Amino acid sequence: MSILVTGAAGFIGTNLVRNLLSNGEIVIGVDNLCRGSINNIEELIANPNFSFYKIDISNLLEFKNLMVEINARTPITEVWHMAANSDIPAGIEDSFIDLRDTFMTTFNTLSIMKEFGIKVISFASSSAIYGDLGSIPLTESIGPILPISNYGAMKLASEALISAATESYLTKSYIFRFPNVIGVPATHGVMLDFIKRLAQNSSSLQVLGNGTQQKGYLHVDELIDAMLFIKNESSEKVSVFNIGCGDQGITVKDIAKETVRQASPGAEIVYGDGDKGWVGDVPKFIYSIDKLKKLGWSPKLNSAQAVAKAISQIIKQESK
Amino acid sequence: MSILVTGAAGFIGTNLVRNLLSNGEIVIGVDNLCRGSINNIEELIANPNFSFYKIDISNLLEFKNLMVEINARTPITEVWHMAANSDIPAGIEDSFIDLRDTFMTTFNTLSIMKEFGIKVISFASSSAIYGDLGSIPLTESIGPILPISNYGAMKLASEALISAATESYLTKSYIFRFPNVIGVPATHGVMLDFIKRLAQNSSSLQVLGNGTQQKGYLHVDELIDAMLFIKNESSEKVSVFNIGCGDQGITVKDIAKETVRQASPGAEIVYGDGDKGWVGDVPKFIYSIDKLKKLGWSPKLNSAQAVAKAISQIIKQESK
Repeated sequence: MSILVTGAAGFIGTNLVRNLLSNGEIVIGVDNLCRGSINNIEELIANPNFSFYKIDISNLLEFKNLMVEINARTPITEVWHMAANSDIPAGIEDSFIDLRDTFMTTFNTLSIMKEFGIKVISFASSSAIYGDLGSIPLTESIGPILPISNYGAMKLASEALISAATESYLTKSYIFRFPNVIGVPATHGVMLDFIKRLAQNSSSLQVLGNGTQQKGYLHVDELIDAMLFIKNESSEKVSVFNIGCGDQGITVKDIAKETVRQASPGAEIVYGDGDKGWVGDVPKFIYSIDKLKKLGWSPKLNSAQAVAKAISQIIKQESK
Repeated sequence: MSILVTGAAGFIGTNLVRNLLSNGEIVIGVDNLCRGSINNIEELIANPNFSFYKIDISNLLEFKNLMVEINARTPITEVWHMAANSDIPAGIEDSFIDLRDTFMTTFNTLSIMKEFGIKVISFASSSAIYGDLGSIPLTESIGPILPISNYGAMKLASEALISAATESYLTKSYIFRFPNVIGVPATHGVMLDFIKRLAQNSSSLQVLGNGTQQKGYLHVDELIDAMLFIKNESSEKVSVFNIGCGDQGITVKDIAKETVRQASPGAEIVYGDGDKGWVGDVPKFIYSIDKLKKLGWSPKLNSAQAVAKAISQIIKQESK
């Protein structure tokens, strides 16, 4: 009996696989290694309970051929579907990216689950589905949901597919609406960006936008913990949960200051104009985790603490 | 300047095209004629303001080649995207049907709009997006939305794409969440089904399920009227509206009785078991049109009146 993790070499996937292995699970990981990296999972591959395959699951035939082979040896009982595009601006520029990497990966994962009789899916959705609702707190029960990026649209589209599949051939599904998740291995995001910029120019940090964008941040360790908690505790057939830090978040300005403090003390911070970094970026939002708190889980770190921890880890990662 | 209607030879498309032409618009209609029929638009094709092309818009290259040709002659200023799979059970059996006919048709329509600078879309969404929320009234502001059919999932997915496109390259979008719409030309649905069964066996009518399924029904004439009203009156950038009859609907049992009364008086009605006709069919729901009423539109016929009118029209259609 084994667990399939898609996007296993990505930021979340790597941390998830490590956790599942430490719980004694047998894990099959797949990744196309476009945004994920084999470096991320080097130490994990040494574990005999982990098998990794470089395939592109947006190609159904390739995916199916592998599953025929694997399922004969170690039947798969559940899927953690983490594979997706992670570059939101790229997906706005070229809508085929999220079609293929965020949506068709989900469609194909469900096709495989139907064909092989795999009954449980856990899915990495996103706060990006909510779009820009201004100052309205984002709870799981608001509507209409109008995403403003193709990434958010294709995550919402994936949720919809999973919901329909759960009515038809799955027994349970878990839809985790991720916040901004930080930690290592960092592959993208504002902190890695700042640290890279400071590595090139240690005296000055250029910030996209005026720095007033405010977001909540959750450390990846806490995200994994929350997902496993929900899987244990929620009895809904389709469990939809926001996962987040539960606070008002911190501004880009504060992230820039903390990065400079840790990475390059004394560097000057230069801001751009406007409160949006790019089309499809939501400037500020209040992300409710009341439903998750009611189930019994709360984060240990607030946004500022999570950011400080992640910056420290990413500086170490980049200095290797 | 012209208006593009996708699914122009389908049930809604035909009625929409007729209405747009009567308002003096120049209309380009496309349809793959899989579920739509050329018979439906025979009289419309005689109108010099209407051009019809048989193409499959799930094929982007085919779609684009046509648009290059048309746009050079009569630039398209807006799109009514009505093309979709209309057979919900078929889409549950084979999820590729709604992927191609309900979702990719939307994806491609938006790709075309982006490429040709067409800024306004009106989209036929569906009450099927809401899934089975039991006795909770379905308003536009409830969540989470968990469709139970691939059709509903791909309609919700299409809404999400349109929303993201409106943030990026469209100026306005109208998302009409259709109820059960009835009238002619009828291509599917419970009334046509009953009338066909009675044509084969005039003494007995077999009903799927126990007949207690209750739904609201709106006549297609009123649907078209409501959509044009919303287009005129709503100032939201993304206008999401339920359209419906606003009443509690009528049961399958009452539809069966009315069909027998009009088509084959005295025929015996035989019911099956359970309150669901098939997986993905929502047994009973309360469809709120409060938002639409607040905007200033209300239907003239209740569900029972709409059903009686449609049955009469479909009997005529089938006797031709």
